Order: sequence, then C-alpha cells, then structure tokens
Amino acid sequence: MKRSELIHQINLKKSFLCVGLDTDPAKIPSFLNDFEDPIFEFNKRVIDATKDLCVAYKPNIAFYESLGPKGWESLEKTIDYIPDDIFTIADAKRGDIGNTSKMYAKTFFEYFDFDAVTVAPYMGVDSVAPFLEFEDKWVILLGLTSNKGSNDFQRIQSGSTPLYESVIRKSQEWGSPENLMYVIGATHPESFAEVRDMAKEHFFLVPGIGAQGGDLHGVVSNGKNDDCGLLINSSRGIIYAGGDSENFEVAVNKSAAELQGKLGTYL
Amino acid sequence: MKRSELIHQINLKKSFLCVGLDTDPAKIPSFLNDFEDPIFEFNKRVIDATKDLCVAYKPNIAFYESLGPKGWESLEKTIDYIPDDIFTIADAKRGDIGNTSKMYAKTFFEYFDFDAVTVAPYMGVDSVAPFLEFEDKWVILLGLTSNKGSNDFQRIQSGSTPLYESVIRKSQEWGSPENLMYVIGATHPESFAEVRDMAKEHFFLVPGIGAQGGDLHGVVSNGKNDDCGLLINSSRGIIYAGGDSENFEVAVNKSAAELQGKLGTYL
Repeated sequence: MKRSELIHQINLKKSFLCVGLDTDPAKIPSFLNDFEDPIFEFNKRVIDATKDLCVAYKPNIAFYESLGPKGWESLEKTIDYIPDDIFTIADAKRGDIGNTSKMYAKTFFEYFDFDAVTVAPYMGVDSVAPFLEFEDKWVILLGLTSNKGSNDFQRIQSGSTPLYESVIRKSQEWGSPENLMYVIGATHPESFAEVRDMAKEHFFLVPGIGAQGGDLHGVVSNGKNDDCGLLINSSRGIIYAGGDSENFEVAVNKSAAELQGKLGTYL
Repeated sequence: MKRSELIHQINLKKSFLCVGLDTDPAKIPSFLNDFEDPIFEFNKRVIDATKDLCVAYKPNIAFYESLGPKGWESLEKTIDYIPDDIFTIADAKRGDIGNTSKMYAKTFFEYFDFDAVTVAPYMGVDSVAPFLEFEDKWVILLGLTSNKGSNDFQRIQSGSTPLYESVIRKSQEWGSPENLMYVIGATHPESFAEVRDMAKEHFFLVPGIGAQGGDLHGVVSNGKNDDCGLLINSSRGIIYAGGDSENFEVAVNKSAAELQGKLGTYL
C-alpha cells in the first residue's frame, strides 16, 4: 500500500487504529475449539467486528509460529481474509545478513503479501535494505520500544545521542517516509516530540496503549504530524475484550469503537 | 544439551564445526526435485555426510519460513533426523516483548526441541530472559556480527565502550556460560582477544568463515579458551560444495572434513 492510500483510509474512517492479532489458543473463547481452525475462526470474527474501525491489522508472528505448520496456515487464511484497503503488518522483528533478510522479505511480502514487516536494527544497513527493495512495501524499524528492556541499550548515549536516535537518523539514509516507519512505544510519551523532530514525515507504529499502560493523549499530542503519522496499536485490550463469551465479538467491537472514537477526535 | 556434554563432543570428534543448513530450493541439486520433500532430502544427505565431522547444526530459519507451512514441515523432519548428541541451533534472530519472546522460546525449544536459538539484543532484558528460563536450553545473543552493517550501530561508542561490549557485559547479568553464548563474526578476527577478555568462559558462535571471507587462524588463536569456547560455522561453503551432482554428498563430506581437519589441529 502507498502512503497516500494509508492517509486516505485514515481520513475516511476517522481512525488510525491498528488491531494487533496476538491470537493465543489459551485465551480464545472455548467454543471455537470445536472448529477445524480455531485461530482463524477467532481472527475472522475479530476482523468482522473491527474492520470498519481500524486502518491496520498486525498479526504477531510468534503466536502463529509457536503452533508449527498449522499456525502458518491460520496466518495465511487470516491475511487472505483481511480486506485489501486495510494495511497489514507482520510483527516479526526480523533482521539478519543480506541474503537471509532477503528470504525473510520474500516470506512476508511475497508468500503472505503483507504491506509491512517490523525489523530489528542491530545488524545495520544490509539487514534492513533487502526489505526496502520491494515496491509499495514497508519496513517498520524498531526505534524506542514499549518494554522495560528498552532502557538497557536503546538509551545508551554516545556523546548526547542515544542509540535510538542514531537508529532513526541513520536509517533515513536507507529509506524514505514512503517505505519506512518506526516503532515508538506509547510508554515513552515524553519522547514523542523529540522523536517527531528527528523524523518529521515518517509514520510511527505505537504499541503499548492498553495492556502495557501507555499514555494515549501524550503520544498523540506530541507525536501527530499533518498527515496523522501515527498508527496506534492495541492487541489484548481489544481482541480479548469478550472473554469466553460465544458472542465475544460484541465486546470486541465495543472496545475497538471506544478507542476509534477517541482517536477520531484528534483528526 | 549441557555445556559439559558439548565440550565432551568437541573432544571426542576433534571438531568444533557447526554446519549451517541454509537450504535454498534454487541451489540444491536438481535431481532432488523429484522427491516429495526436496529440502529434507537434501538436508538428510548433508547430515549423513557430515555428522561425524561436526558438533552442531544450524538451520537458518528464514530459508524454511519462506516456503510457508511446507518449509516448516521440512524443518521439523530435519531436526528429528539430527542425532541427539549433536547440538542444534535455530538461527532465527528473534527478540520481542516478554510475552512474545516466550512464544518464540516455546516454538524453538518445545515445538522443535532445538538446543539453542539466536536472539537479537536491541529490546533488552525482557526480550532475552524468557529464552533463558528453559532448562538445558541456550540463548546465542548477537554480539559483533559478521556483516558490513555491524559497523552501523554495534561499534557506536559510549565513552570508550562500543555497543557490542555493553551487550556482552550487561547480558552476563541475565545468563551464565551454561546457557548463554554470543555471535561474534569471523570477519573481525582482531576483536576476538578483546571479546574473549569480556566473556572468558562463554562459547562464541562464529559465522563468516567461508563465503563471507573471515580469517580462521586469527579467530581461533585469539578466541579459543581452555574448553575450546568456539563453534565455527560454515554454511554455503560446505552444503553447496557438490554443485548439481547426483552424488554431491561426496564433495560435502570432503569440504567438511577439510575444515574439521584444520580445527582439529587447534585442539
């Protein structure tokens, strides 16, 4: 998907919500276990309940991988089920030497036809560049992540420059606002103004609202740009809102609508 | 596998060779395409030709993932085929927030029963710790990688401390020489003495010999410790040594034997 189309969808839906599909067999309503593919059945219902409220879906690849080949099949069916006008993100945190990153890019962009994949920056340019060679496909590079461990290395200072700043500045030599976004965690709302200043036009994918306790208002007021420039992700807070209920999708829809409503007020 | 068993195997086989199973459908001998699972047939023959010469196998997960559920099945059969006394490494470069890293750990340690998985350090302690909670299983953390891009961030200095040194020192608070190794690329032979000084007892997994042009003698003379402490990986240089030949395994065996012979002289 092109950047202009993503912005069009945001304005159309009055939403910059991304729904994270962290689908865990231990947490989905138990009645779904009678179906042949419970993971896909769950995702299908979540997608039906949220597709008018969000502009992106982000399956967390770990959850599908942990189920072996069957999980891979559930993922494939899920991606095929998502409407074409919704941006799809493989949350995979990949990154390796050039010939290997190229294989990962083929997996997510050709085999599955995702729009974007999250990539870890530690191995530098040749681990990221192979993903940027695909037309209308995106790298979402880890910048400042939402977890506690983000303090271990991402904030290490070289002179007055923290590592995440080096990552954000250096990587702008490799990609553009048309194919490169950054992961910036909502648990660091105070950093958003500064990060926005480093990357004025780039979209940020923002995890950490919801289960991780991030501050939505701080994020949006500091991080929004003229094109919106933000995708706010919520996973567990939305998809498990219905508990073990057989019509869990009502609560899923309500939870997504609440967040979309809040987001809409900023547009 | 326990550290003591790995050291026992190294002394028994006079080898610290790790064979990388970067199995690419476009590079395997064409006659294998007549089999139902060409990838597994190739790996099986490579394993038969090298199992007495190496102490570890390292499937590169990207190559299996890129084939979808079928690739995942080939990987499963490959792991089941590797003899139990050989150390197995999932070269996956994973790492995410805690609940997600736990899922990746389950994938590689429980679903596949690998001994070790390579992990990227960028997200810090809670992205690495879940892998360290499995008994007799290992994290192999990226330290100083073999690729050109390793210069982009890994050598960024904070005071006089490069990032890779911070990673190696800090992570020793999370794991021990019994469950934590480091990836140190053979393309930096000059750094091995210094890295060995930072992590005296830890094993290093060393890619970059062979196709990437690393210096074996420099690595071993600077990096070996009293327990050996090194696993030298070769992938393309061994597994594709036989070209398109129907008895390619003869050349695979010869290539592995040559490298094992060299390694044996250091033990």
